[in-house]
Amino acid sequence: MSRVTCDLTMSLDGFVAGPRQSFEQPLGEGGERLHRWQFEEREANAAEVAGILEAGAFIMGRNMFAGPGPEAWDADWRGWWGEEPPYHAPVFVLTHHRREPLELQGGTTFHFVTDGIEAALDRAREAAGTKDVAIAGGAQTARQFLSAGLMDELRLHISPVILGSGERLLDGVGDLRLEPAEVGGTGLVTHVRYRVVR
Amino acid sequence: MSRVTCDLTMSLDGFVAGPRQSFEQPLGEGGERLHRWQFEEREANAAEVAGILEAGAFIMGRNMFAGPGPEAWDADWRGWWGEEPPYHAPVFVLTHHRREPLELQGGTTFHFVTDGIEAALDRAREAAGTKDVAIAGGAQTARQFLSAGLMDELRLHISPVILGSGERLLDGVGDLRLEPAEVGGTGLVTHVRYRVVR
Repeated sequence: MSRVTCDLTMSLDGFVAGPRQSFEQPLGEGGERLHRWQFEEREANAAEVAGILEAGAFIMGRNMFAGPGPEAWDADWRGWWGEEPPYHAPVFVLTHHRREPLELQGGTTFHFVTDGIEAALDRAREAAGTKDVAIAGGAQTARQFLSAGLMDELRLHISPVILGSGERLLDGVGDLRLEPAEVGGTGLVTHVRYRVVR
Repeated sequence: MSRVTCDLTMSLDGFVAGPRQSFEQPLGEGGERLHRWQFEEREANAAEVAGILEAGAFIMGRNMFAGPGPEAWDADWRGWWGEEPPYHAPVFVLTHHRREPLELQGGTTFHFVTDGIEAALDRAREAAGTKDVAIAGGAQTARQFLSAGLMDELRLHISPVILGSGERLLDGVGDLRLEPAEVGGTGLVTHVRYRVVR
């Protein structure tokens, strides 16, 4: 069976976004600094950047698709990624709002799942075939899968940044058993691939 | 000039100790799990374990020497480490209580410094000569040196443990510029050596 993976970038003090997240500023104040490694050191981190998008199907939370707040759902929002999103695979969006699938170019179709994370995972596994299913974010969705024991591999990208406040990745996930399986990195990031032990 | 280093073990969610630290339980509830890497994988982590004690002088906070609470100062406390502590070098203890130096076996002498971290650092540098000065802990003392811009290298040992509550290492240290210089690890720990950029 395919694995369930999740790539997340976290500050050294445990935040995945700064304070005051909004539709205009989805990563909160200062949060974009977390992701410098993906842009300024793209070549040195090529394998990790590619790994984020190599799954056969993706699951994301409603805020990851549309930002916090009600704006996007009112506006027939098509996601942040333009007409050809980088997923090139089915993406299952967790939401309470029913909506028809949104088929964009390059193989990305957003499916809106209203009956919970396990239903979303079943559908994503079926779509992924032998490939992995990736939890694309955000942090709240990652925490749900971690807490429910539904994640196999957490790939943390730890930025050497202190945000001081914002949204913490691991608050309230309970007592996980994690095992570092691989480490690496550059001057802007430390990659740790954790196996989640059941 | 010798560098100022600091080795600290932190949970993946940012804690250096669990909740309810006390004289009997200085690492708080569950905190001893953070240090499994030092005991259960001593050989695999031999270089890092040795690195913790290779400085020419050490600085530690009062709680590190005597635990939280007033008990130890009343009892003419000689530290947690027996008659031959593992430091084998001068150790400068930050405190508000004056006390004569305590000379133990094997080269460890505890000096009690009542005039602040910079005075302690001056004395430690002089004692260390060309060797490094290590901030031996605890977390509060490490934060003081980080915030004051007096640390050159933070060596974090990140345990794959979620404590959920306790004492956070990096709360309130301000916006540091850190740069990962070396990463490594085992199944029980990820070592990251950060240069603190001024």
